Amino acid sequence: MLMEINGDRLWNSLMRLAEVGAYDDPNTGLRGVNRQSLTDEDAAGRRLLVSWFTDAGLTVRIDRMGNIFGRREGSDPTAAPVMAASHIDSVATAGAFDGCLGVLGALEVVRALNERGITTHRPIEIAAFTEEEGVRFGTDMLGSAVAAGRITLEHAHDLTDRDGLRFGDELDRIGFHGPHDVRLRPPHAYVECHIEQGPVLADAGVPLGVVTGVQAISWQKITVHGRAAHAGTTPTELRVDAGLAAARIVCRVRDMVDSGDYGRLRGTVGHLRTSPGLPSVVPELAELTVDLRNPDDEHMARAEHDLADFLAELRRGQPGLTITAERMAKTHHVPFDEGVQKTISQAVEDHGLEHLSLMSGAGHDAQEIAAIAPTAMIFVRGRYDGISHNPREYSTPEDCAHGVTVLATTLLRLADQR
Amino acid sequence: MLMEINGDRLWNSLMRLAEVGAYDDPNTGLRGVNRQSLTDEDAAGRRLLVSWFTDAGLTVRIDRMGNIFGRREGSDPTAAPVMAASHIDSVATAGAFDGCLGVLGALEVVRALNERGITTHRPIEIAAFTEEEGVRFGTDMLGSAVAAGRITLEHAHDLTDRDGLRFGDELDRIGFHGPHDVRLRPPHAYVECHIEQGPVLADAGVPLGVVTGVQAISWQKITVHGRAAHAGTTPTELRVDAGLAAARIVCRVRDMVDSGDYGRLRGTVGHLRTSPGLPSVVPELAELTVDLRNPDDEHMARAEHDLADFLAELRRGQPGLTITAERMAKTHHVPFDEGVQKTISQAVEDHGLEHLSLMSGAGHDAQEIAAIAPTAMIFVRGRYDGISHNPREYSTPEDCAHGVTVLATTLLRLADQR
Repeated sequence: MLMEINGDRLWNSLMRLAEVGAYDDPNTGLRGVNRQSLTDEDAAGRRLLVSWFTDAGLTVRIDRMGNIFGRREGSDPTAAPVMAASHIDSVATAGAFDGCLGVLGALEVVRALNERGITTHRPIEIAAFTEEEGVRFGTDMLGSAVAAGRITLEHAHDLTDRDGLRFGDELDRIGFHGPHDVRLRPPHAYVECHIEQGPVLADAGVPLGVVTGVQAISWQKITVHGRAAHAGTTPTELRVDAGLAAARIVCRVRDMVDSGDYGRLRGTVGHLRTSPGLPSVVPELAELTVDLRNPDDEHMARAEHDLADFLAELRRGQPGLTITAERMAKTHHVPFDEGVQKTISQAVEDHGLEHLSLMSGAGHDAQEIAAIAPTAMIFVRGRYDGISHNPREYSTPEDCAHGVTVLATTLLRLADQR
Repeated sequence: MLMEINGDRLWNSLMRLAEVGAYDDPNTGLRGVNRQSLTDEDAAGRRLLVSWFTDAGLTVRIDRMGNIFGRREGSDPTAAPVMAASHIDSVATAGAFDGCLGVLGALEVVRALNERGITTHRPIEIAAFTEEEGVRFGTDMLGSAVAAGRITLEHAHDLTDRDGLRFGDELDRIGFHGPHDVRLRPPHAYVECHIEQGPVLADAGVPLGVVTGVQAISWQKITVHGRAAHAGTTPTELRVDAGLAAARIVCRVRDMVDSGDYGRLRGTVGHLRTSPGLPSVVPELAELTVDLRNPDDEHMARAEHDLADFLAELRRGQPGLTITAERMAKTHHVPFDEGVQKTISQAVEDHGLEHLSLMSGAGHDAQEIAAIAPTAMIFVRGRYDGISHNPREYSTPEDCAHGVTVLATTLLRLADQR
C-alpha cells in the first residue's frame, strides 16, 4: 500500500512553526529562527506542537526531559510502536527545516492516516526530543540520549547554560517537566526524516537520501606555543613560529584526506587564529580545531593516531615548540538498521522517486535511538549546497512532500509488520 | 683620541625618563612605558628632555614637526654639524630603551665633552624626532621623514589618530609646535645608537653591531574568500576552503625563504584568522598578513612577484576561491654610508670591544636621514632574544655604556673631520 500526504498542509505547518522565535537576520536579510531549547520561544513552539498533536487525536505524553510524545493507537495496543521523531529546538541563527521537518512530517503522516481512516496493526508514536542542538546546555542529542539511556537524567538536569541556569530549573520554568518515565521502551522501529544539511543530494540532482548511518566524529582543539619574535630582525633559524606549525597541521589534515589511506575520512580546520596577530611579530601562539569524520571507527582511530604522530614530529623538528591537543568531542560510527533502510528505499521506488544511499555527517537523535531499536533516516535535499544553521536553509515544498510521503509509506509498512 | 662616558649617569637618565608614562604591565608583571607621541606623557617626557638639553648648555631648537634639536657649537660655527639622534615616543607597551638610548646616549656624549672641556671642529647636534613609532598617527619615522623631505609638513599635520584628532592640533595642544623650519640642513654625518630589537648579537655573544643598512620591507594583507560548508556533510571535492588556502600561503612563504632563491629573504605571517571560526564549518574567509624583508631590492621584487604568482596558481587550482592582496607598507633597501660605518667599527676596535656587522630588520629614523647625509647606526645587544616593544626589553648598563662610548668616540672623530 502507498500513502499520500497533503504537501500544502505540511508546508503551512512548517511555515507557521517558523514564526515562533522568528527574527530579522542582518547577515542574510532574511527571516531566521532562534528557538533555543527551554527558552520562552521554545515553550511557545512546544505549546503549538502539543495543540496540533491533540487536534490530530494523539495521546500526548511528556517525560521528565521534556520530550513530547504523541501516540496513535494500533489495533494491537500491546505491540511495540513504530516511532517517527526529531526535534524543534534550534540554533541561534536557524532556518525553518532542521528538525521541524521530521516532527511536522510525522504529524502530517498521522493527519493523513486519520483522513483515510486507516488503523495500523502497531501503534504509531511521534515525538519531539529536547535540546538536540546542544547550543544552550552544551550537549547535543540530549533528550534522546537520556531517553535511550546513554546519559542519566540527573546529569542532564544539572547541566547549566552560559548564564548558569540549570536545565532542570528551566524545564520547570517553561512548564514542560513532564511526569512520565524518561527511559523509552524500545519501539519496533524508528524512522527520522531530516534535511540533509549538506550538498550531496543537490549535487547529484536527487531529492531523497536513505541514510546508512552516522559517521564517527572527532573534535580536537590544538594549541601551539612558539616564541614571539620581531619579523625584521629575527633570523629564520632562530624562530619558533607557532603560526607556521599550525599551517603545517592544516595542510597535513588535508593531505591525510587526499591520501586515501584512511577510508572516507573528512578533515576540517574551521578555527585557526594566531597571537599576538601583528604583521611584524612571529606568532607566539596559534589555536586551531581539527574536525575529523569517518564512517569507519578503525580508519578514524588510525587517522587520529597518525595526526598525533605528526604533531610529535613537528615538536621534535623544532626545539622550543610545544603542541597540546585536547579532545572536544568524540562519537563512534553508528550504522543504521539494514531492514529499515530497505523498507525506506522500497517505498522510494514504489513512489517512483529517486534516492541515493549516503552516510550522515552530522549527528541526529536517530543515532541515540539506534542503540535501542532498529533505526534509519530519510534525508531531503537542501538548496544552496544544503546550507543549514542559517536562515538561507531551504528545501522546496516538493522535496519536503516527497520526503514525508516516503516517511508515510515506510511507517505504514513498519506498523503492519507482525 | 678615545672618549669615555659616564655609564651610571647614562643609566640614571634612562631610568628617570622611563618613569614618564610608566604603567604596571599585567602580562609581564613588570613596569612598562606608554608614551605615545603627542600625548600628555610624551609632552612631559619632552619637557624633561628640553630641561636636560638646556642644563647641558645646548641651544634648543624645536621645528614645526615638534622635532627637538640641541646644538653644541664647534670651533667653526659655519661647518655642517655632526648629528646624533633617535626618538623618545613609544608604543603602548614599551620598555625603557627603544629610541631613548640614542637620544640620552647623545646627551651623555655632550655631557662628557663638557666635563672634559673639549671643543670640536664641527658643531654637534643631538635630536629627538617626533612619532617614530607610527602607532598613534599611522606613519612611522614621521618626524624624520618630514625633516628629510620625503613627506610634506602639510600631509603630516593632517594625519589623524583613532579618535580623529589631528597631528597638527595635538602638536599645538602639547606646546611643541616650534617656529623653526622643518627641512633639515644636511649634517656632515648622522649616527644613531639603538638597541638591536633582535637576537643576533645576543646569539653571537657580541655586545655591539655596526649596521650596514635597513632592509627593504613589504607588508601585504591577503584576504581569501571560500565557501562556508558543513564539516560533516560536505564531500572534500565540493569544498572551497579559505583556511586551507591561507595555510598553503603560510607554508609557501617559508618555503620561499628556505629555498635560498631570494637572497637573504625573511618572511613572516604574523596574523592569520579564519571565519566563522567554528569547528564544524569549513572557513568561508581567511585573513593573513605577509611581512617580507630583504636587504636587496631586486631579490625583494622577485619574491613579491613569485608570491603573487603562487596566489594566482591557488586561485586557478580551486574554482570558487578568490584571493586579494592589498599592500600595507613598502620601503626600499637603505644602505648606510661605508665611511661612517668604518669610523664606528674603528672606534669599537680602539676601545677593545667586539662587534658584528649586521643589517637592520626594523625601520629607524636613520633611514630617513640617510637620504640627505652620510649615515650609519650602532646596535646594542638586548637580552631575552632582543625582545622589544615589550616591558621585558632590556640591555645591561654595561652594554648601554659600551654603545654610547663608541658613539662618543665616533662623534668626536666625525666632528673633527674637515
